[in-house]
Amino acid sequence: MGESGLTNSPATRREFLGHAATATAALTAGTLLSSAGCARSTARLTGRQGGGLIGPGSVVLFQGDSITDAGRDRRREDTANDTRALGTGYALLAAAALLANHGEAKLTIYNRGISGHKVFQLAERWDKDCIALKPDVVSILIGVNDIWHTLDGHYDGTVEVYERDYRALLERTKRELPGVRLVVCEPFVLRCGAVNDKWFPEFDGYRAAARRVATAFGTVFVPFQTMFDEAVRTTPPAYWAGDGVHPTLAGAQRMAQAWLQAVASPTT
Amino acid sequence: MGESGLTNSPATRREFLGHAATATAALTAGTLLSSAGCARSTARLTGRQGGGLIGPGSVVLFQGDSITDAGRDRRREDTANDTRALGTGYALLAAAALLANHGEAKLTIYNRGISGHKVFQLAERWDKDCIALKPDVVSILIGVNDIWHTLDGHYDGTVEVYERDYRALLERTKRELPGVRLVVCEPFVLRCGAVNDKWFPEFDGYRAAARRVATAFGTVFVPFQTMFDEAVRTTPPAYWAGDGVHPTLAGAQRMAQAWLQAVASPTT
Repeated sequence: MGESGLTNSPATRREFLGHAATATAALTAGTLLSSAGCARSTARLTGRQGGGLIGPGSVVLFQGDSITDAGRDRRREDTANDTRALGTGYALLAAAALLANHGEAKLTIYNRGISGHKVFQLAERWDKDCIALKPDVVSILIGVNDIWHTLDGHYDGTVEVYERDYRALLERTKRELPGVRLVVCEPFVLRCGAVNDKWFPEFDGYRAAARRVATAFGTVFVPFQTMFDEAVRTTPPAYWAGDGVHPTLAGAQRMAQAWLQAVASPTT
Repeated sequence: MGESGLTNSPATRREFLGHAATATAALTAGTLLSSAGCARSTARLTGRQGGGLIGPGSVVLFQGDSITDAGRDRRREDTANDTRALGTGYALLAAAALLANHGEAKLTIYNRGISGHKVFQLAERWDKDCIALKPDVVSILIGVNDIWHTLDGHYDGTVEVYERDYRALLERTKRELPGVRLVVCEPFVLRCGAVNDKWFPEFDGYRAAARRVATAFGTVFVPFQTMFDEAVRTTPPAYWAGDGVHPTLAGAQRMAQAWLQAVASPTT
């Protein structure tokens, strides 16, 4: 239902709006209400979507590359829930919804994405930019540079290296943060701007690797490529990401909606 | 229902989430769907909320002071729908929802708020920052500086001057932009930070004046103060606006939700 709900036709957008609201409501119910013991209300609100990953007092960390970074003010990165520290991308927009609709939950939200980074570079700064923050929920969007930088000759990684490093990063995260809840976001591109046929079919291999990692570690998986594939059926790719890689405001908001919907759904 | 829906208790938040979705769905239905002639679907989706103010191809302008400005990049202000040009406040967050959920509508959204401005300063730059953009929808949030700058001795205006200048601005806007749809936003403060007893009861007079102007010109009125008064019942004022005037990310998102809900409702 999440995928069909993300199509862009008027009929299914109506469903999407309903589903997005359900996901948000599920987040409310699955966290604040169930923690208050309102099982009946929770059941009524969440239906089959089940409990949310984010609970009262949760520390939520967004990690990744430029799509997550989105021009954040790194001088303020230690200040949680700070508008400038969260950048202007999907992390800011998802945080805005979480903070506005869950005031009593006292959430603590950080963004530590850094432009240009590949998975091995997350590993290099993981102690400082993940473990030290003691997050309850870690959301990772990484991979587009792992392939992009090979296409432009600045990196010699492969999809096997990407998957190996990604698995090692999550192993380490679960070992050092017992009980952490992980979110693996699907790398995505839109066929416009810098994205041409040279990217395929290799790029699909990186997407598949991210999905295998999510399945292997039982994390929530956010299907960004699936969402954008549906979005371009009625609105051109450049509307969602001008250069094919970096989302516009519209693209970032669709990502935030998909992220909230997935994080409110049962882990797969 | 809008006001009760904006309370912050778990029970009413559940309603709020539903209502917010209804408002967004109403915006979809009242614009894209009704323009496509899907009267039945429109009726089912919008219920008593009726048609939206924003239609396919609409040019939407956000005007005001620092709360609207929100650190926007003025060098990019002529670029519509640009993340940096929209700032990081309620205008950005409302635009994100509009652009993400109405891709085919080809909306054009600008932010021309400027920090520190009072209503007479909007008038001084109205030809360039409003009329020249030929907006279909003009949303204005102005008034907090009209009183604040008198409290700190930098301005000698009164509530009568504020209302007179505000009415003159809307008269001029309707004369120069026949068919323009206006949105008057309620000035608001939260009792924390820079906001102390010196602000009252005078501040309530400015709020009342803004509401009189909205009624006199038949505009949509966005009840921001009412929304925040409900929000602080369960979450402290500083959570929504640290200095009592400038919203946090959570406060800005609540404003965007209230704005979308009001703009999707019938004009009053």
